[in-house]
Amino acid sequence: MTAVLDSGISVRVRVPASSANLGPGFDTLGIALGIYDEIQVTTTGSGLDVDVVGEGAGDVPLGPSHLVVRAIERGLEAAGVWVDGMDVVCHNRIPHSRGLGSSASAAVGGLLAANALVGRAAPESVLSEEQLVQLASEFEGHPDNASASILGGAVVSWTAQGPAGEPDYRAVGLSVHPDIRAFVLIPAERSSTAETRGLLPEIVPHRDAAFNVSRGALAVVALTARPDLLLTATEDRLHQPQRAAVMPATHRWVTRLRANGIAAAVSGAGPTVLALTTTDLPVHLVREAESDGMTVREVEIAAGGAELF
Amino acid sequence: MTAVLDSGISVRVRVPASSANLGPGFDTLGIALGIYDEIQVTTTGSGLDVDVVGEGAGDVPLGPSHLVVRAIERGLEAAGVWVDGMDVVCHNRIPHSRGLGSSASAAVGGLLAANALVGRAAPESVLSEEQLVQLASEFEGHPDNASASILGGAVVSWTAQGPAGEPDYRAVGLSVHPDIRAFVLIPAERSSTAETRGLLPEIVPHRDAAFNVSRGALAVVALTARPDLLLTATEDRLHQPQRAAVMPATHRWVTRLRANGIAAAVSGAGPTVLALTTTDLPVHLVREAESDGMTVREVEIAAGGAELF
Repeated sequence: MTAVLDSGISVRVRVPASSANLGPGFDTLGIALGIYDEIQVTTTGSGLDVDVVGEGAGDVPLGPSHLVVRAIERGLEAAGVWVDGMDVVCHNRIPHSRGLGSSASAAVGGLLAANALVGRAAPESVLSEEQLVQLASEFEGHPDNASASILGGAVVSWTAQGPAGEPDYRAVGLSVHPDIRAFVLIPAERSSTAETRGLLPEIVPHRDAAFNVSRGALAVVALTARPDLLLTATEDRLHQPQRAAVMPATHRWVTRLRANGIAAAVSGAGPTVLALTTTDLPVHLVREAESDGMTVREVEIAAGGAELF
Repeated sequence: MTAVLDSGISVRVRVPASSANLGPGFDTLGIALGIYDEIQVTTTGSGLDVDVVGEGAGDVPLGPSHLVVRAIERGLEAAGVWVDGMDVVCHNRIPHSRGLGSSASAAVGGLLAANALVGRAAPESVLSEEQLVQLASEFEGHPDNASASILGGAVVSWTAQGPAGEPDYRAVGLSVHPDIRAFVLIPAERSSTAETRGLLPEIVPHRDAAFNVSRGALAVVALTARPDLLLTATEDRLHQPQRAAVMPATHRWVTRLRANGIAAAVSGAGPTVLALTTTDLPVHLVREAESDGMTVREVEIAAGGAELF
């Protein structure tokens, strides 16, 4: 029989943002960034109450279709646990539609909150990290953002095939070299992943595929042991050039930073620019980016991933 | 003025074989294997004498066009050193035209021998490891085999662009996890890299490019820290399927080993099959491969790379 949770159980999780691709690693590489959404879930005897504070407040429906709610329900369902009602409060800090993985973080947060609730009612049914990666990635259709938010640090993720041909999302964590620092340049305008995905070509030159394979492999070395190679290791020919025209400011700043020796890449599907360095960004470039409409900030690399707090 | 070497200086180098690609890492990943060619070079007052023992004896011209001789001359030239004459003796053990990097090893051996001679005459002109990778890769047109033979262990290699658009070959070494063992299945028939390169498509699906990027990045993790992921990390869609028809035995054995959970891939452009495992190969598979015309042997992963001895 399905375990039913008592009323009045409350859990709180915080989930880091994430940046995917890191240049060459399309749908593969991701890194967790220290901008956190917080979710508090309290079980009740009846009904659903959703409250959103911060990013996305007023933009998103506050009912069962809310992504965090769907993720909580998916997590409870996967563990075979039921709640009669719940209050959900989201404190959102991750900017939406900027390529910082806010939807992956919402899915991860909902699943992790559900798992914490499961831990109270049926500890033997708690979902494993592998299951959380799978379920969160199913919401996304790719594992790079979700696995970074779950595992923390940087990740190599991939999609295998399950027994019935269904996607089997997998990821392995990387310890990011302690000298590496992350900066984001966030434009005011939003971007839609669905739209920018439509700009990707069906076919690419074999030499460009081989190019990205070399840089993707090198990125693992650069991120973990050789930050001096980050500039080369973040080169890409598979998705950034193809989307440059629809994100002119993003393209301009990736190009400008790289011309200054700074490993910059489009964060996920954009429009945020991610820069990985071992130094400060030059002040004149920061000022210039700000006068070009970018919000520039250093963000910690979130070593730990999503967690209860 | 160019330094001229005295007669009677003798150097001896040994160079490991190598296996390139390792599945996904087309022109990127390589691993040094403990099958060694040995080259002895002695300076003389006049003339060129080349002697080849073992693999390739009788097959290759024994004059200035011999690859080892060309590599020695290239190394001496790059360092600004001259010899009036030399005797070259090659003890070859790396099978030719089998995808085990014998031509890269010959180039590396010649360059390293030249560098050792340079060390005697003009120590300040000795070529760096980076220069050796560059010069050896120029003979090949790709850096994966040559850099593995030079650096030892496994490598991530790549081709950047020099100031005049010329290829700038680079590589970084990886410490291979100590549990990983290498086996080769060497068919009797030879293969020509030039011919098999012609079988590669000009264009590939974007999804296959992304697939290989993920496996190439994962391969770095698997080789260094997670041998349990080698099977997934050696999956490829960019070159092995395209060449399968011209190497039926190779394709059959890559497929058969993989179906048995063993990370197998075409070694370079084939026809040798490389298997990376943490266990012995099952005896029944070894026997079956042997009766299919394969020479099956375990080879050490050559941690050290090419060296004087």
